[in-house]
Amino acid sequence: MPSVLTVDVTFGDCDPAGIVFYPNIFRWMDAAFQKLLRPLGGHDAVCAEFGTIGLGLADAQAQFRSTIRDGDLLEIHTSYANWSRRSVTLAYEGRVDGRIAFEGREVRCLFIRGETGIVAGDIGALRSRLEKTT
Amino acid sequence: MPSVLTVDVTFGDCDPAGIVFYPNIFRWMDAAFQKLLRPLGGHDAVCAEFGTIGLGLADAQAQFRSTIRDGDLLEIHTSYANWSRRSVTLAYEGRVDGRIAFEGREVRCLFIRGETGIVAGDIGALRSRLEKTT
Amino acid sequence: MPSVLTVDVTFGDCDPAGIVFYPNIFRWMDAAFQKLLRPLGGHDAVCAEFGTIGLGLADAQAQFRSTIRDGDLLEIHTSYANWSRRSVTLAYEGRVDGRIAFEGREVRCLFIRGETGIVAGDIGALRSRLEKTT
Amino acid sequence: MPSVLTVDVTFGDCDPAGIVFYPNIFRWMDAAFQKLLRPLGGHDAVCAEFGTIGLGLADAQAQFRSTIRDGDLLEIHTSYANWSRRSVTLAYEGRVDGRIAFEGREVRCLFIRGETGIVAGDIGALRSRLEKTT
Repeated sequence: MPSVLTVDVTFGDCDPAGIVFYPNIFRWMDAAFQKLLRPLGGHDAVCAEFGTIGLGLADAQAQFRSTIRDGDLLEIHTSYANWSRRSVTLAYEGRVDGRIAFEGREVRCLFIRGETGIVAGDIGALRSRLEKTT
Repeated sequence: MPSVLTVDVTFGDCDPAGIVFYPNIFRWMDAAFQKLLRPLGGHDAVCAEFGTIGLGLADAQAQFRSTIRDGDLLEIHTSYANWSRRSVTLAYEGRVDGRIAFEGREVRCLFIRGETGIVAGDIGALRSRLEKTT
Repeated sequence: MPSVLTVDVTFGDCDPAGIVFYPNIFRWMDAAFQKLLRPLGGHDAVCAEFGTIGLGLADAQAQFRSTIRDGDLLEIHTSYANWSRRSVTLAYEGRVDGRIAFEGREVRCLFIRGETGIVAGDIGALRSRLEKTT
Repeated sequence: MPSVLTVDVTFGDCDPAGIVFYPNIFRWMDAAFQKLLRPLGGHDAVCAEFGTIGLGLADAQAQFRSTIRDGDLLEIHTSYANWSRRSVTLAYEGRVDGRIAFEGREVRCLFIRGETGIVAGDIGALRSRLEKTT
């Protein structure tokens, strides 16, 4: 801990202003989260093990500190910022050549089908499993 | 005001859990913002008129209230939440069949090349132009 | 027939050269295909009705005739070019203001789980259903 | 030669059928091409050196041989299949664990602004530069 995902930023990730189109930063934050699930077999295996339909988002946020461009090697450092009974908050820090490119945050829940629709289930068992992998 | 962008959500916008992959929601928020620039000729024309390299993001955030799926008709309502001297805050509300799917927020700046790198320029002139279009 | 999908091309669809990043053209071709499935309830409903895991691709191809940019209104005309027993070939034509922007082609199969892995199933029943909708 | 790009396939690259959404394969083919430009400084530097507005596509094609999923490590092998005076054809082969996942092909031109619009310029000088890097 923290886990690090390295992204080799490419031309197609950038917009006409020549910098990364920002939704891609959230795409990479998601990839960084999925990487945390790899030791458990990935998202599908986690869904099967915990009887959930997905480890979905309740909230996502990012602050963009400096530009990221084609050819940059982006390092995303991921850590668990907070666990509550029904959600986990992940903290992301993106760095290029040592400088901070962005800081992000996701609140994720273990969504299950309840009687009245999709609800956030107890996340404690997943937490135990994930903490053993780090 | 507010401006409305309608998105015909499709299969490829969704992930293995069968719901919209959340970075696409930020992609659509950006599209909703770009729509506001259309009466001024779009992003390129705005850059030329205001001598900026881009109307980039300082911060983006979204809360996901309910799931969006293949076949949903998503309405994104966009409004100006706040103007400061060097930034504008946009508020987004995504609705499917009347229910709220997400609420989002972006802080955008008019980035210009300063002596020490890219800085946020005065946004007042753009504000005047945009307010005349609504 | 043919079915038409209109795409309001936006900033984020474009690359640093200021033109549409070409994988987005395939994304829109897929969306145009998914639109054909709407009268049957969409991809999920088709999978359930025909016992398939997906209407996947065997082959995809496009020729890019002229540039597409932010602000362009792209019309994609979709038609069935050919049906064989286990595949359908779709033809796409993308137009902006009357000029041809691209011509595309997809070969799709109805993938089912066979004894030796995923195989292309008989597509005749789907063909009958789709032909009734046009 | 050939150049190899490794893609760590993730959840968000996949669609509701649980396999990679195929436009992403073209996105990765583009990334594999951009990697060839790295020794020359990347796309921007190439544009500046050769007075072009972009190394764009005339044609792109892929055949999908086997499914790619979340967690797969995809290797894309890139080679120059053919050079003509005004275009280059690139060949791609995607492999997961030794099996072939896809075979692709792109025809690219060095687009320049001509008197009658955008045209394909002579690609010989770029060829010389690229052949020295391999």
